[in-house]
Amino acid sequence: MPHLTRSDNNGVAHIEMTAPERLNALSDGMLAALQAEFDGLMEDTETRVVILSGAGKAFCAGHDLREMQAARQAEDGGVAALGDLFDRCAKMMQTIQKLPQPVIAQTHGIATAAGCQLVATCDLAVSADTCKFGVNGVNIGLFCSTPMVALTRNIPHKQAFEMLTTGRFIDATEAQTLGLINKSVPAEQLAQATREMAETIANKLPVAVKTGKQAFYTQAQMNTPDAYAYTGARMVENMLDANTNEGINAFLEKRDPDWS
Amino acid sequence: MPHLTRSDNNGVAHIEMTAPERLNALSDGMLAALQAEFDGLMEDTETRVVILSGAGKAFCAGHDLREMQAARQAEDGGVAALGDLFDRCAKMMQTIQKLPQPVIAQTHGIATAAGCQLVATCDLAVSADTCKFGVNGVNIGLFCSTPMVALTRNIPHKQAFEMLTTGRFIDATEAQTLGLINKSVPAEQLAQATREMAETIANKLPVAVKTGKQAFYTQAQMNTPDAYAYTGARMVENMLDANTNEGINAFLEKRDPDWS
Amino acid sequence: MPHLTRSDNNGVAHIEMTAPERLNALSDGMLAALQAEFDGLMEDTETRVVILSGAGKAFCAGHDLREMQAARQAEDGGVAALGDLFDRCAKMMQTIQKLPQPVIAQTHGIATAAGCQLVATCDLAVSADTCKFGVNGVNIGLFCSTPMVALTRNIPHKQAFEMLTTGRFIDATEAQTLGLINKSVPAEQLAQATREMAETIANKLPVAVKTGKQAFYTQAQMNTPDAYAYTGARMVENMLDANTNEGINAFLEKRDPDWS
Repeated sequence: MPHLTRSDNNGVAHIEMTAPERLNALSDGMLAALQAEFDGLMEDTETRVVILSGAGKAFCAGHDLREMQAARQAEDGGVAALGDLFDRCAKMMQTIQKLPQPVIAQTHGIATAAGCQLVATCDLAVSADTCKFGVNGVNIGLFCSTPMVALTRNIPHKQAFEMLTTGRFIDATEAQTLGLINKSVPAEQLAQATREMAETIANKLPVAVKTGKQAFYTQAQMNTPDAYAYTGARMVENMLDANTNEGINAFLEKRDPDWS
Repeated sequence: MPHLTRSDNNGVAHIEMTAPERLNALSDGMLAALQAEFDGLMEDTETRVVILSGAGKAFCAGHDLREMQAARQAEDGGVAALGDLFDRCAKMMQTIQKLPQPVIAQTHGIATAAGCQLVATCDLAVSADTCKFGVNGVNIGLFCSTPMVALTRNIPHKQAFEMLTTGRFIDATEAQTLGLINKSVPAEQLAQATREMAETIANKLPVAVKTGKQAFYTQAQMNTPDAYAYTGARMVENMLDANTNEGINAFLEKRDPDWS
Repeated sequence: MPHLTRSDNNGVAHIEMTAPERLNALSDGMLAALQAEFDGLMEDTETRVVILSGAGKAFCAGHDLREMQAARQAEDGGVAALGDLFDRCAKMMQTIQKLPQPVIAQTHGIATAAGCQLVATCDLAVSADTCKFGVNGVNIGLFCSTPMVALTRNIPHKQAFEMLTTGRFIDATEAQTLGLINKSVPAEQLAQATREMAETIANKLPVAVKTGKQAFYTQAQMNTPDAYAYTGARMVENMLDANTNEGINAFLEKRDPDWS
């Protein structure tokens, strides 16, 4: 049984985690499969948008706790193996934001701990209105310190602190209000609503989306003057693309662009 | 026809962009006029608050696309001229935040691309409830990379990313929920509601407002210990002002301050 | 009359400011009492959660203006004394975030100026629905520059700027929407609701909460790669705790952990 399945349609790659019996936990195998898939997308110019979903009852329940406990058997008590695990997980998460394609999390059931981190890390998220989100590691004595990195870059501090220390789950409505997801829809409309957002973006000029996504996270970590100098240079690059020239001319001439 | 009109009333300078036939686009002329007006305000101790609005159907529709396309005719394909354009625009935007006076965007119709950036950049924004906001350059193949700098410093990441990559417009209610504007009112109450906010601030002690606005953006880019050291020093300066002394004494004596 | 009272119950330390006749102003005495109490908590392994409330009509009305005015009598016009005051206040605020225990502000009446800063600084806040929040120093000519440091790290920029420059108060509902507080309840349920949140957290594994709180503020000031490297190392440390081992095993075995 593979960790992932992938289907491609009109420039949208739909990647589904397929370990439903473990609630799509981020096991060593799942992390490696996701990393390999994302590494491939880095140079994939056919794919314009990525959808990430989970098979079965849940989107993703976080790390694979049995594997983590097994790591303790090493002579060092697991220090090296666990450090390596968090490194691999953080690398996979950061790869998502480095991809040229926007990645949409399509969430249902539960998204907990590193599964909630995955939602916070994806560029966009569309959710079933029945989905619950939590960074509830504190309930078993393991604070969600790495998920916190993504979470606190999405939602306000007080609400993040509460989720992290009380382990309280939030529903999709609250997740949208706080900024963790973009949209909440009835479960039976989830696939369609996610696909619509994906296709909307897939129909944009890829070089514009690629330039923009890269600039998004880069400028966010700069002070304002540096961010303007950086994004100004990206605007010039974007302007020099022949298809952008065509796009602006088409707009000025009130016709559709020919982006063939 | 001038690019701007200005009317002054009780310490409130109301600057209106007056290129309605181009939806108040930020043409070279408009950028220069705004920069000149703001440069003048930098040393203007009579003016306590600035209102920025647009004549005609829209607040501002962003850059002047015809001028940008014309820049391509240069030998370098427009690299120098376009780079200069984004520099001048970023300078104008950052001047708004450097002014001693709070600047209130009074928005109606549409505020798109660099026009939406202008709203995000102003310290405050009051909007007609019929106004739409978008960073929709992606629709014509030019990602709103520079508007993104201001937008992502106002609203949550996931919602900003969606606006930027889908080109979706948001209405004034959503803009207020997200933090892009302060207040949404029926169109017929817009001028009055904006003026009320301006006059509320114009009645405060100017040295306090000036010190505070400058400190606002400066401390926001510092880590917390540095931010406290910096703002603590600004508090001491503020305390040393004779009018602040009078303001506090008046409060303790339950009378109105004499800030003549 | 002491500045504070403290009662301890099941690992929850409830500290109450007891200067109701001055609306629990942060006088020299109050600041020193809070600092001493927090310094003691730094090494207090019995206490798992702290509740901070105010006796009388208000949570806290900010600095003690009479003391600040008296400082002007010094030869330097108060420069040294006022600088020292803001240093001591900033130190106390930052000590709250350095404590191993989460601190919950239990607010009622008003929380203004440095009192509002105290709410923004606490990790969590539960409020009576009748409480009003303001950074209204501008009304007396003293801009709330230091409170702004905490406020702008909790709520969106435009809304913070409006509160700071107009002096407008917000109610508990708006405070919750903006992210300044976690929860608003009828006044008669305030003590109970705060205690429930405190006990929920007090029942978690202390080492997880302590590690997590420290990591929360540290990673928030880092760029994303550094934040992941730092929190990954904290996760490994947390994993090495024997009680975390027990917590995870208990979860996998579907039983309650034995954290004796």
